Parts: sequence; C-alpha cells; structure tokens
Amino acid sequence: MLALGVDPGTATVGYGFVRENPDGTMEAVAYGAIITPPSLPMHERLKMIYTQLSDLIAQYQPERAAVESMFFGKNVTTAITVAQGRGVILLALTHAKLPIHEYKPAEIKESVSGFGAAKKEQMQEMVRMVLNLDTIPRPDDAADGLAIAITDLHNARYSAYMDES
Amino acid sequence: MLALGVDPGTATVGYGFVRENPDGTMEAVAYGAIITPPSLPMHERLKMIYTQLSDLIAQYQPERAAVESMFFGKNVTTAITVAQGRGVILLALTHAKLPIHEYKPAEIKESVSGFGAAKKEQMQEMVRMVLNLDTIPRPDDAADGLAIAITDLHNARYSAYMDES
Repeated sequence: MLALGVDPGTATVGYGFVRENPDGTMEAVAYGAIITPPSLPMHERLKMIYTQLSDLIAQYQPERAAVESMFFGKNVTTAITVAQGRGVILLALTHAKLPIHEYKPAEIKESVSGFGAAKKEQMQEMVRMVLNLDTIPRPDDAADGLAIAITDLHNARYSAYMDES
Repeated sequence: MLALGVDPGTATVGYGFVRENPDGTMEAVAYGAIITPPSLPMHERLKMIYTQLSDLIAQYQPERAAVESMFFGKNVTTAITVAQGRGVILLALTHAKLPIHEYKPAEIKESVSGFGAAKKEQMQEMVRMVLNLDTIPRPDDAADGLAIAITDLHNARYSAYMDES
C-alpha cells in the first residue's frame, strides 16, 4: 500500500510517499517540497503546484492520498493563501482519482507519536524512526508530508480491521 | 472584446460573459452561477467548479478574465472555503491561457456605478442599465460576475488609451 501525504501551502507544498510493506514496516519512497517563487503571480504559482503534484502522482502511482486539514490561525491573509493552494492540491488528487482523507494536526501528532501535543522536533524524530531513515527528512514540510502519509496508512489499517471484525 | 468575470466561492460561483462592441456599448453574452451541493465532499465540489468553468470558457471563448479579490471578512472558516474555490478558479483560467486581472470590491463598485461605496441594489441596477437588460440578472452572484467583467472591460479600455497616448 502506497500513500501520499501532502502538507498544503502556496510558497511550499511538502509531500511524502510512504509504502507499508506486507510485514507492517513502512518505508519512504520519495519526499520533498514543491517550491513556488513569490515573484510569480498567484495563478502561476497555483498552476506550478497543480502540475508538479500531478507529475509526482503519475510517477509514483500512490493508491491513496491524505491532506492536512486547514489550521484556522490568527492570520487570515496567510489562511487564504494556503487555502487557495489547498484547493488546487485537492483538485489534483481528485483528477488522479485517489481516495482522499483529511487529518487535523492533532490527529497526525497522535497517530505518529502517540501524543496529540507533540512538538515539531519530537514528530520529526518519530518520522525518522518509523521510516528507518538515517537523518531527519528535510525540509520540514517534507517531514510533515511523510507524517501525514504515515497517519493515513495507520487509518487504512484500522479501517480494514474494523471492516473485518 | 469578450471578458469573463467570476465571483469566487465554493457553494456558488457567479459568472458573467460581457462583450464590448466596436461602438463602445456592452452586452451580456451569458451569465449564471455554478452551484455545488453541500452534501458532496469538498474535493468533489472543487472538481465541479473547475470542470464547469472550463466548459463555459471552451464554449464562449473569452479573451480575458477577471476575479474579485478575496474579501478578508470576520469569518475565517468562510474565507478558507471561498479561497479553496478561488484557487481552482484561478487554475481553470490559467489553464485556458487567459490574461487574469483581480479587482477589489470597492474598485468594482467604483467602475460600474462611479461610487466605491455603492449598495448591492444600486450595483445591480447599474449592471442592468449598462448591459441594457429588461430585468436585474439573477442570481445575485451572476450579477456580481457581470459587474466584474464590466470592470475588466473598463480597465482594458483605459490601459489601451494609456498605451496609445
């Protein structure tokens, strides 16, 4: 089972492809960040995100996808910018006919570290350990993308168990 | 010159296609609203918006497009929802290779009614008069889309004049 996790944004979109093996171990297949230059107009940046994410999906062929829920922060301007990026991300996943799940930040922390209030550093270290990586994945947004994919695989496993029982 | 104006949203996306004739008069070529059911998941609603807007562009072949700027209201949840819709609207316009302009609500009011603080009813009546329609266009979002297209045609005319002089 290969899952894609996406950390939404406009300047930086973090992503991670994580495979769950038959023995239950997980491995990072690919991860990184789509960066869009602030000098470009918003519509060109949104096009870059859509195109590059669609290309990554075509390359790695995930079976499911997950996106972090919007965080309702204090800064409305930032929220609107992130939400525009999130719109085209959801469109790319839908055009690729992937099942899409959304997880709140606290759910992702709980799922990866067992602790809904885990700090960023604790999360990154848990991602490294779960995926058996030598170093913490960089940039931070890529580590977030991997954490979202791990959460989605945990959720898929739990859903399958619930369906069987 | 045919301009498309779009009033962004997720539940309702208003649109209007306005043609400026060689004699300077304007006429409504088409207008309406794309409605997405709240019962559908967000990603399906975004896909509907993208597909239907792309189909309208293919049908009417506008030469330019305009979208209202985001209004930073009090309700962040609404702003995020509208912004996700706005993201896929900008993507559809970009994929159609249209020049895109953005106008603030006060700019649209100023351009259509000559008065930046015009009320909704005044704006709708001005749209009706400028386009020589028998009745005020419905729904409200369609009238907003037409007002945005009128603003964009005014702006195109002004830019052409400035280039010549």
